[in-house]
Amino acid sequence: MQLLFGPDVTMAAQDPSYPAYVDTSVLVGQTQGYYPDTQQYGKIVYMKCLPENNFFPDLSKMPRTDTIFFCSPNNPTGATATRKQLEELVAFAKKNGSIIIYDSAYAIYMSDDHPKSIYEIPGAREVAIETSSFSKVAGFTGVRLGWTVVPAELRFQDGSPVIKDFNRVLCTTFNGASNISQAGGLACVSSEGLEAIHKMVGFYKENTRILKETFDSLGFETYGGQNAPYVWIRFPGSQSSWNIFDEILEKADIVTTPGRGFGPGGEGFIRASAFAHREDIIEATQRLKSLYGGKSN
Amino acid sequence: MQLLFGPDVTMAAQDPSYPAYVDTSVLVGQTQGYYPDTQQYGKIVYMKCLPENNFFPDLSKMPRTDTIFFCSPNNPTGATATRKQLEELVAFAKKNGSIIIYDSAYAIYMSDDHPKSIYEIPGAREVAIETSSFSKVAGFTGVRLGWTVVPAELRFQDGSPVIKDFNRVLCTTFNGASNISQAGGLACVSSEGLEAIHKMVGFYKENTRILKETFDSLGFETYGGQNAPYVWIRFPGSQSSWNIFDEILEKADIVTTPGRGFGPGGEGFIRASAFAHREDIIEATQRLKSLYGGKSN
Repeated sequence: MQLLFGPDVTMAAQDPSYPAYVDTSVLVGQTQGYYPDTQQYGKIVYMKCLPENNFFPDLSKMPRTDTIFFCSPNNPTGATATRKQLEELVAFAKKNGSIIIYDSAYAIYMSDDHPKSIYEIPGAREVAIETSSFSKVAGFTGVRLGWTVVPAELRFQDGSPVIKDFNRVLCTTFNGASNISQAGGLACVSSEGLEAIHKMVGFYKENTRILKETFDSLGFETYGGQNAPYVWIRFPGSQSSWNIFDEILEKADIVTTPGRGFGPGGEGFIRASAFAHREDIIEATQRLKSLYGGKSN
Repeated sequence: MQLLFGPDVTMAAQDPSYPAYVDTSVLVGQTQGYYPDTQQYGKIVYMKCLPENNFFPDLSKMPRTDTIFFCSPNNPTGATATRKQLEELVAFAKKNGSIIIYDSAYAIYMSDDHPKSIYEIPGAREVAIETSSFSKVAGFTGVRLGWTVVPAELRFQDGSPVIKDFNRVLCTTFNGASNISQAGGLACVSSEGLEAIHKMVGFYKENTRILKETFDSLGFETYGGQNAPYVWIRFPGSQSSWNIFDEILEKADIVTTPGRGFGPGGEGFIRASAFAHREDIIEATQRLKSLYGGKSN
């Protein structure tokens, strides 16, 4: 297994129904055209993940693809795949000869005993690349340090190792992360660094708990918040997520993320982020209670 | 004009006969196949630049290309284009509708009054992108901070601005340089930073002078060394640059760069770098004198 330091890797979310950032693939012509009626690119298969399917697709109905992007814990929903679900996913990839790109950027936020890495699943080393980042682990947003694990066991159909090509492509297109960022990454994995990381993660988890409790108390349908620094909130009726965003921004001066920005499956949801000072989180909960406290949701 | 901070930009040398790093273009299939007999890629036109043509191509014999990579002061030769030569280059690009990618990474090493930027040439803003880096300016090798200037006046044939596409491509494929590196870049352009930079550059220029004087005193044909931190040394006869490299490594324990590594036009040359401690440079000159002092070159 080889660990490659890279810049922040483009995150790919399986949920809601959309890899979060498909732009680079579109740019190099790998996705075919965009179909406005379905709001989808021709060569991307979308795995719709909603509360109705417990945020995990019915793999028996999915076609074969070359690669499968999967993010767990998920951004934006906070959903985390169980061991059984990941075993299904690995078996599905193995059967189809697909490569899983597994994004575990939020693994450090996990409170339960779901797998923190795809490699906890037997056989995953033959079908999966795992990518992660210091951005969420240690608040390195903007510092640009991530990593990608490409197991030696991962092979193309002709038997040649994927790592050989991966290494060639990465070394050709990228000179490496800043050595200062790398020094920061090494400091993070010292015992002092790890202690500071766990303290910081605990702080944001408490923020997440406060946010989730607020939306719950207001009668909203909420998801996530256990294993990720986000709460995923469904609004009643068929409200557009951009309208919800506008209302919260204009009436409470709070910035949320409209679910639609993550793909068509995010319509009707907003994402609330816990990455803020405690006093701002408290202030936000008070404003949300003023805005929605009188309503019946 | 827009200034975009990016990672170290891939350098493209016009000399000797070869853009220094063509690998990324090869990777995305823009260069056609490699022809072992000419040692060239099918869709790259090579501008051979040797002492015989004063390190500048005869543009009247060059075909039209979409882009022209040009590095001045040049790595590895140290050759610097004159104002008249750059006027010719800009006129040539304008006539052909080509875009010049001008690499000025070594401009801070210039001692004479040749242009330090392509934009000193009237009309260049309509045909040229200029790229540079803090790597050589401030010893930022590994810190990963460079910049690219895309003038608003630069347009595609249909009149649309190149900057719009450039911005889209860059923002899609790259999340930006580390904010720590960027803070370092800002420190460099403070008055204190600039003073430190000029002191450091002066130190390496003195190293370059010592190296050049040594090779000159030993009777070698040398180039560069005035406007760049490198000396470009031609060896007599038709010696392979790898053989010269091996000899100096094995007999004097000194690492040089074989010219062949920069392309077929570099055969018979080696590059000596001034980026070293003064005592190591002095030690190297003594070893070179022991190795070559008895010979008639």
